[in-house]
Amino acid sequence: MAKFDPDLNLIFQALSDPTRRAMLARLGKGAVPVSELARPTGLALPTVMRHLSVLEEAQLIATEKTGRTRLCRARPDTLAATADWLEEQRAIWEGRADRLEAYVMKLMEQGDAGKS
Amino acid sequence: MAKFDPDLNLIFQALSDPTRRAMLARLGKGAVPVSELARPTGLALPTVMRHLSVLEEAQLIATEKTGRTRLCRARPDTLAATADWLEEQRAIWEGRADRLEAYVMKLMEQGDAGKS
Repeated sequence: MAKFDPDLNLIFQALSDPTRRAMLARLGKGAVPVSELARPTGLALPTVMRHLSVLEEAQLIATEKTGRTRLCRARPDTLAATADWLEEQRAIWEGRADRLEAYVMKLMEQGDAGKS
Repeated sequence: MAKFDPDLNLIFQALSDPTRRAMLARLGKGAVPVSELARPTGLALPTVMRHLSVLEEAQLIATEKTGRTRLCRARPDTLAATADWLEEQRAIWEGRADRLEAYVMKLMEQGDAGKS
């Protein structure tokens, strides 16, 4: 079992590239084969694999080999941890303790749902 | 008047460094002089200035010279735009159209408040 330990350095680095953000957006529909992720980019397969490896190292995606196909899927837990960091900063910057509190309450309520 | 046009490439690149994230977090208390931001990092001033320039280019901070002091302040609008992108992805990934809809409603409600 892989330990879940999101690394904000790797995550933000991975998100700083538009091709990788587009790949992530495409994974909203569920698991997608590498070939299908590659097609709209028009990039050579090694380049695509390098982008996917950056995303996988940041734990933003997971890949899995089934037969001859490598499937990619999103890891919403990592994106959630990243969004949480941003929301926390935003709450602090906006000087709204109540907003942060409301957000933490929401997170706590969603805690069980997220585990399913 | 500077056009507000957040660039996710620059923003995520800026956020991928722990020193810069720590600097951002310190700006939660309001405008801070460069010297005060530099102190806890233990970095040389030119290095600090380079980090600040990356943050400023990404529009995550604004700096302003008052007399001999350069003040830095956070730009919550940029962080908000970034958090919105993440929330949108998260909503899509989690396959919860209702969540996205609720979030968009919230944004629309906050629209006027954000302009003040």
